Amino acid sequence: MDNSDFKGKNILIVGLGLMGCSFADAFRDLYPQKIYGFDINKEITNYAQQKGLIDEGLTKINSAILGECDFVMICLYLDDAVQFICKNMDGFKKGCIITDIVGVKRKIVSSVQEVLRDDIDYIPGHPMAGKERQGFGYADKKIFKGKNYILTPTKFNKSDNVDYLEKIIKAIGFENVVYTDPEKHDEKIAFTSQLCHVIASSMVDINVDDDISNYEGGSFQDMTRIAMINSKMWSELFIANKDKLVNVLDNFLTSIESFKMLIEKEDPKLIDKLDIIKKSRESL
Amino acid sequence: MDNSDFKGKNILIVGLGLMGCSFADAFRDLYPQKIYGFDINKEITNYAQQKGLIDEGLTKINSAILGECDFVMICLYLDDAVQFICKNMDGFKKGCIITDIVGVKRKIVSSVQEVLRDDIDYIPGHPMAGKERQGFGYADKKIFKGKNYILTPTKFNKSDNVDYLEKIIKAIGFENVVYTDPEKHDEKIAFTSQLCHVIASSMVDINVDDDISNYEGGSFQDMTRIAMINSKMWSELFIANKDKLVNVLDNFLTSIESFKMLIEKEDPKLIDKLDIIKKSRESL
Repeated sequence: MDNSDFKGKNILIVGLGLMGCSFADAFRDLYPQKIYGFDINKEITNYAQQKGLIDEGLTKINSAILGECDFVMICLYLDDAVQFICKNMDGFKKGCIITDIVGVKRKIVSSVQEVLRDDIDYIPGHPMAGKERQGFGYADKKIFKGKNYILTPTKFNKSDNVDYLEKIIKAIGFENVVYTDPEKHDEKIAFTSQLCHVIASSMVDINVDDDISNYEGGSFQDMTRIAMINSKMWSELFIANKDKLVNVLDNFLTSIESFKMLIEKEDPKLIDKLDIIKKSRESL
Repeated sequence: MDNSDFKGKNILIVGLGLMGCSFADAFRDLYPQKIYGFDINKEITNYAQQKGLIDEGLTKINSAILGECDFVMICLYLDDAVQFICKNMDGFKKGCIITDIVGVKRKIVSSVQEVLRDDIDYIPGHPMAGKERQGFGYADKKIFKGKNYILTPTKFNKSDNVDYLEKIIKAIGFENVVYTDPEKHDEKIAFTSQLCHVIASSMVDINVDDDISNYEGGSFQDMTRIAMINSKMWSELFIANKDKLVNVLDNFLTSIESFKMLIEKEDPKLIDKLDIIKKSRESL
């Protein structure tokens, strides 16, 4: 596997939501032999097939088909993804690559590692792309353009396979492939992504007005757009990363408290603090 | 005064920063007789004159010129704006309109009201437009396009003058003129604008990384852009509105705390809460 395409390869996409269908849309450009799409919802597999995103839809996993797939992309929520991989471990094709898109990595990596066969390569990943809207109807390969994709390979991965996955990721539009380990991934993500989602949700939570749009210059709308999140998926991710996220939330609460104090006391140090922050943000 | 232009009128813009120069740029299209620009910094008045934003720059207020101006736009920070209006009260032209752009309204309205002459019309305003970058070099009339402009007229204002100001505001690109009183303005702004700025600043405050951009999908950059604020101006505005802002910060802290609790306890109510918030944000 050393070209950045899927020529002669069978692909299986597991879970045909926004992300699964967007990957199907993007993978089509890489000349796969066949794209199979699995989803428990028959309406969704029919839709994906009609739209030409997949060649064949499955609502149950068939071991003959699973045994043919060279590349398996798991686009399920955390617990479902773990369950799917573990339950089907015996069925995967010898030498296949399995990857996933779950937004926190420690739990899935350790759970899969426990049952992983030696002759298949599971490379954990996290594409930093998406949409506020959920569901296959919003699928679009353009959401990957210019984005980051984090990989947390393990010592068991073949470096050829990791290189191949990086080429595929870049071929479908991602700009930057970042390598780290699950521990560091989950720590960073607690700050850059999960904190943002909790803040946006809290801002909407405390809003008592419906005419807010008359009184704003855009900041409020911009900052709360990501409050329209997939509640079930994000709750699962927040809880799976709760040690890191609670730590970040504590730091954030302390900082807001300290601003509140400076404002209450009309402390001139407020200007210095904002000045330092301004310079720090400018340098990012 | 019933046309939406400045034909035959002398305009004075006080303070030639980002906003003052952007207004000068926009006012030029309304056929003013003459635009005077006041700034204590000679370099800035020279720049504005060279760029054709103003016809004549002043670094000191000359009572002959002040007595000629039909429309005075005060683009100074809060305390400077109050001081300028109060100090020059005797010099303004009989019948002139004065307006300001200060981001909190209770303090300036009550301070000016105390010394206001009966024969001039002070109409307080707040354009909800700006840029993260400050200074005349970033001035651009396009920043007003499609934005909100809040006016908090008093019982002393002539309705013809208020109507005229609304026409001027719309003529330079603002889409929506919203009327309210200083009390309600300051309450709304504490939430829609000041809270956003404190949050963005806190997020940057607790960041310990310089490779943050590798680990994000855009939310962090988007939410912290407004942390690059004008420290002196915003400190003054936060403090002038501290009762309202501290109240909003308390509500926000309580909401973040409650999210933290739900996450720590792995409480399934987290999903319901996020679901309600999602629907509430979608309806905005």
